[in-house]
Amino acid sequence: MTKPPTSLDQLCINTIRTLAIDAVQQANSGHPGTPMGAATMAYTLWTRFLHHNPANPAWPDRDRFVLSAGHASMLLYALLYLTGYDLPLEELRRFRQWGSKTPGHPEYGRTPGVEMTTGPLGQGFGMGIGMAIAEQFLAGHFNRPDHAIVDHYVYGIVSDGDLMEGVSSEAASLAGTLKLGKVIYLYDDNDISIEGSTDLAFTEQVGERFDAYRWHVQRVDGNDIEAVAGAIEAARAVTHQPSLIIARTVIGFGSPHKAGTAGVHGAPLGEEEVRLTKDALGWPEQPLFLVPEQALAEFRKALDRGRAWEQEWKDRLTAYERDYPDDGRRFAQVMSGELPRGWEAALPVFSSTDGEMATRVASGKVLNAAIQVLPTLVGGSADLAPSTETYLKGHGDLGLDEWCGHNMHFGVREHAMGTIVNGMALHGGVQPYGATFLIFSDYMRPAIRIAALMKAHSIFIFTHDSIGLGQDGPTHQPVEHLMSLRAMPELTVLRPADANETAACWRIALDRKGPCALVLTRQDLPVIDDVERIHEGVPRGAYVLAEADAARPDMVLIATGSEVSLALKARELLAQRGVRARVVSMPSWELFEEQPQAFRDEVLPPSVTARIAIEAGATLGWSKYVGDHGGVIGLDHFGASAPAGVLFEKFGFTPEHVAERAEAVVARLTTAPR
Amino acid sequence: MTKPPTSLDQLCINTIRTLAIDAVQQANSGHPGTPMGAATMAYTLWTRFLHHNPANPAWPDRDRFVLSAGHASMLLYALLYLTGYDLPLEELRRFRQWGSKTPGHPEYGRTPGVEMTTGPLGQGFGMGIGMAIAEQFLAGHFNRPDHAIVDHYVYGIVSDGDLMEGVSSEAASLAGTLKLGKVIYLYDDNDISIEGSTDLAFTEQVGERFDAYRWHVQRVDGNDIEAVAGAIEAARAVTHQPSLIIARTVIGFGSPHKAGTAGVHGAPLGEEEVRLTKDALGWPEQPLFLVPEQALAEFRKALDRGRAWEQEWKDRLTAYERDYPDDGRRFAQVMSGELPRGWEAALPVFSSTDGEMATRVASGKVLNAAIQVLPTLVGGSADLAPSTETYLKGHGDLGLDEWCGHNMHFGVREHAMGTIVNGMALHGGVQPYGATFLIFSDYMRPAIRIAALMKAHSIFIFTHDSIGLGQDGPTHQPVEHLMSLRAMPELTVLRPADANETAACWRIALDRKGPCALVLTRQDLPVIDDVERIHEGVPRGAYVLAEADAARPDMVLIATGSEVSLALKARELLAQRGVRARVVSMPSWELFEEQPQAFRDEVLPPSVTARIAIEAGATLGWSKYVGDHGGVIGLDHFGASAPAGVLFEKFGFTPEHVAERAEAVVARLTTAPR
Repeated sequence: MTKPPTSLDQLCINTIRTLAIDAVQQANSGHPGTPMGAATMAYTLWTRFLHHNPANPAWPDRDRFVLSAGHASMLLYALLYLTGYDLPLEELRRFRQWGSKTPGHPEYGRTPGVEMTTGPLGQGFGMGIGMAIAEQFLAGHFNRPDHAIVDHYVYGIVSDGDLMEGVSSEAASLAGTLKLGKVIYLYDDNDISIEGSTDLAFTEQVGERFDAYRWHVQRVDGNDIEAVAGAIEAARAVTHQPSLIIARTVIGFGSPHKAGTAGVHGAPLGEEEVRLTKDALGWPEQPLFLVPEQALAEFRKALDRGRAWEQEWKDRLTAYERDYPDDGRRFAQVMSGELPRGWEAALPVFSSTDGEMATRVASGKVLNAAIQVLPTLVGGSADLAPSTETYLKGHGDLGLDEWCGHNMHFGVREHAMGTIVNGMALHGGVQPYGATFLIFSDYMRPAIRIAALMKAHSIFIFTHDSIGLGQDGPTHQPVEHLMSLRAMPELTVLRPADANETAACWRIALDRKGPCALVLTRQDLPVIDDVERIHEGVPRGAYVLAEADAARPDMVLIATGSEVSLALKARELLAQRGVRARVVSMPSWELFEEQPQAFRDEVLPPSVTARIAIEAGATLGWSKYVGDHGGVIGLDHFGASAPAGVLFEKFGFTPEHVAERAEAVVARLTTAPR
Repeated sequence: MTKPPTSLDQLCINTIRTLAIDAVQQANSGHPGTPMGAATMAYTLWTRFLHHNPANPAWPDRDRFVLSAGHASMLLYALLYLTGYDLPLEELRRFRQWGSKTPGHPEYGRTPGVEMTTGPLGQGFGMGIGMAIAEQFLAGHFNRPDHAIVDHYVYGIVSDGDLMEGVSSEAASLAGTLKLGKVIYLYDDNDISIEGSTDLAFTEQVGERFDAYRWHVQRVDGNDIEAVAGAIEAARAVTHQPSLIIARTVIGFGSPHKAGTAGVHGAPLGEEEVRLTKDALGWPEQPLFLVPEQALAEFRKALDRGRAWEQEWKDRLTAYERDYPDDGRRFAQVMSGELPRGWEAALPVFSSTDGEMATRVASGKVLNAAIQVLPTLVGGSADLAPSTETYLKGHGDLGLDEWCGHNMHFGVREHAMGTIVNGMALHGGVQPYGATFLIFSDYMRPAIRIAALMKAHSIFIFTHDSIGLGQDGPTHQPVEHLMSLRAMPELTVLRPADANETAACWRIALDRKGPCALVLTRQDLPVIDDVERIHEGVPRGAYVLAEADAARPDMVLIATGSEVSLALKARELLAQRGVRARVVSMPSWELFEEQPQAFRDEVLPPSVTARIAIEAGATLGWSKYVGDHGGVIGLDHFGASAPAGVLFEKFGFTPEHVAERAEAVVARLTTAPR
């Protein structure tokens, strides 16, 4: 028996639910339960609170909406279509199909209004915190009395799974420390995860946990519009604490046989249950993807509201630009995402007369020079600022004394750092970076990957990049990390050979689209004075740093990072022994692969098959460049705890050993039949 | 002015402190602050509570000691030497030197009495939880009324950094759910991390947070022996909650200028401050590494106590074996770590007549068969049991109804799962496994690496191993993961091609030393009937699955996992076109690399340089096997959300495309000058 919806609100909410039901059923794949359960609170948030303009998803001061529970993508797609984003109903019919704008999990850049890529749990939670930090930073820098040109909320829907993931714990603790009052997360508390009741593995008291993080915590019935609205109001009134609204919901709400069960989490309802659910919701069985006109009209009011909000903001901005013209220009520059003209000139040039220098130290000098011309720079380290050399001296601690500070203290929370850097990058107006030891890139790998998927301009600084860190031992010595990062699509990995290459790599990292990882040494390295060659070569990924003393080299030594100076020394030894070696410095595989074949053949001549690659890391992958006749001096085992010099010696990273291996390769090729 | 120590206890505690001070100063590298600050509580724990036998670090029922704050390694080394482990004082003098038993961070297997490798923060916290789970599991299975043969505690020292890391949040929440009363962690609450005061990033209320996880929480002065002892007593009395004892301490205790500052965290005190500190502690400046006889005698009482404890346990075991002879035999078998004779016979053999089958499904069948003969199997999934096919049917849920269950519910906590599996493996008496999607191996990578470093027998099951998972899209489709895992030393990666290879891979995983990762498909694959060839071939890493129809193949197709059946189809196409292709199935690079060169040349004849590798993942690394003249059909970009069949088609994983590429490679080699 079909009952009529009790109200317009209910009609709208059931429109969301049934769109999700139909899309998942039609795709025969997806997660209907969460959209059905969270529809009421999402509706309440989107129609009563969320400041957004569907006609301009790029309006800078919009509230950000975070669907951390990315598997509930249909909830978001339904809202985007219904409120008038450029996402036609036809796309909802193509849910999870090749080329559609409605992939299985929300993808940033693919669908208008999708603020971030989510799905891997906890990522959205952390990125939302990063967005709120960016908002506070920009507000701290630009807002003036009676002129709040940066003033928006970050709302989110988070799930049990999000809150089980450690990354959200890390991010929540930091958000509490930073008193991020603009964060308001609705927790879809439905007691169900894929294996069944959350009692199986999750009996903690979530509210008390967030109390402990110093969040503002409320509990409401997630199916009660007024209760949800009241809680959001209350959360907005609390300006110095992030808010968690624990909303009791029923997963798969409306499904007579599957509501409140794991069965509705990650699988279509099935045709019969779809029929029964629609019946229970007072919804006609057909047509599929039914959108009642009345509901659509109600949702589409978002367009008028949004236009008005954006206009009101534009008026505020105009007034600001009038009263604070310099700040107005600065704001426009910062929000443009463009680098100011001539910024590169501010970066330092290093000289061998300065003595040896670790690339982490050079990086610190570059950063501290860059901040003079790039006021968008803001970042920090996962409790390793003194070691990663990432502190911006004289630029304050963000969120502690003041929101104008540029230095963040992430705590020992690499994973949250990664997500927060991503969220800041997505927000715009800032150029974020996060630093830790290369070994701990493993702790934040899911965030690095999301950055790569989104092509977010996150900069990751990884120091202590090999056994060269010495005595901390194998728990701290990366081996496989460089190669593992190179294997990731869309990530640019940069491992400079000295201080000047470090400056050149920073130029690339700051100017490039997409995420970059700077991989830096703890130990000192000689400074290479050939600045022009470096600045021409580094952007091409690999270049001839030292030419053989002949037109055609007998062999090529390819090295990265700290092993380049080793290659240079080996080259001298080889010269003494009559072997003419070319040294190729290869700071970035990705950049090199982007070069035309002709350039690549120039650097690595196909006719010179005697090649040795030298890198203090896993050899896997180097065959590509050294070929069938070459060799690799690398590290296919874990390191050890001893002074760095001892380790390099024990593990074969000496000029003598490199020269020996090189001679052997050349000899084999000379004597062997081709 | 040198003041005499006020008591024997104080003398002992200062012995620990000064050994740490001297060792770090002599190495000119290390972390003196935490050993100095935590010496009192460690002393109290080790002399009054910790049941261990320094003469036999392998005594199965010893209490486990977890130094999660691994940077405080000198605290542990001092205790090991002082209580009489096989760690002479000479080794402490060689702290952080090549070949010593005292590396920068504790390494399992290198130093007697070191229970686990720690240093990367949070790992120890989680592994301790795993040890406690193993203890409860074995107690649940073997203890009988009046016969407690498994009955020990897991004590730990954890730091601010440990508690900031998300992995400890995950593990703590699960430990609370499981009511692990045998876990007693001392939290070294010293308000200092590397960047300075913990106020910078860590203002949460840790005690309240652990209350929320349903832990038993106490607060004590960590420098007050009686207070610490009282808290440990109270914690032991609480049998159904893990305990956190928040011990207020002063980092670098005793150092007049550096105590309570970040300066003493990760750097030697400096000679002058060493002098002043020793003076303040009433300690003579010389000799270095001074161990007062009285203190040593007090510590060495641990030997007598330990022998007595172990003997008492042996007596209990004898009585148990008398009263429960069958259980006694089973216990001996289980604790031996050996597999029961003939266990392999229990594993299923699959037939193509059963139809196509996903390797995850085959894996589930293997697991459910194996449990019949391997009662040590215990494990589960990070909330994906139905998808990873890891549930052991009819074998109960561990820690919920009963402690005899074999199924764990880790919750959406991949990282904690990894650490817990590692801790269980270290404990002994169980064969643990943990499962999730391959994409989420990123979330637990630090734990996988620690397993590899320790050569722990952890089994990781990673399903949904490629774009073959289909519509969940790029957020869930692994691309770089296989190669990233292969790059890690000491990890065996196994990617079976069908159900029978899956069984063969499980045989290896269960029998091999060190961690293994099983990489499995979501999608169905044809079953290959050539069981004998498979069981002979898989342990060698790669083998000829289908021979070319000639003595010498024109080319070799190398494939892994789901791409093997694709290669077989391409081979047929090629045969029709007159190209004789050999198909090599290569489930494990690591196993193949262990084979003699002759065997490797047999499988991949050096004379056959026309080779194509096919794997739905990053191509990086394959050059090694396909050589300069070969090609790789892989995926160097992210996937997309669409049905799997569409994706394989769009991305070139079709028999036609493989055949075309193969023909091109053969043609190039035939026509090109060699």
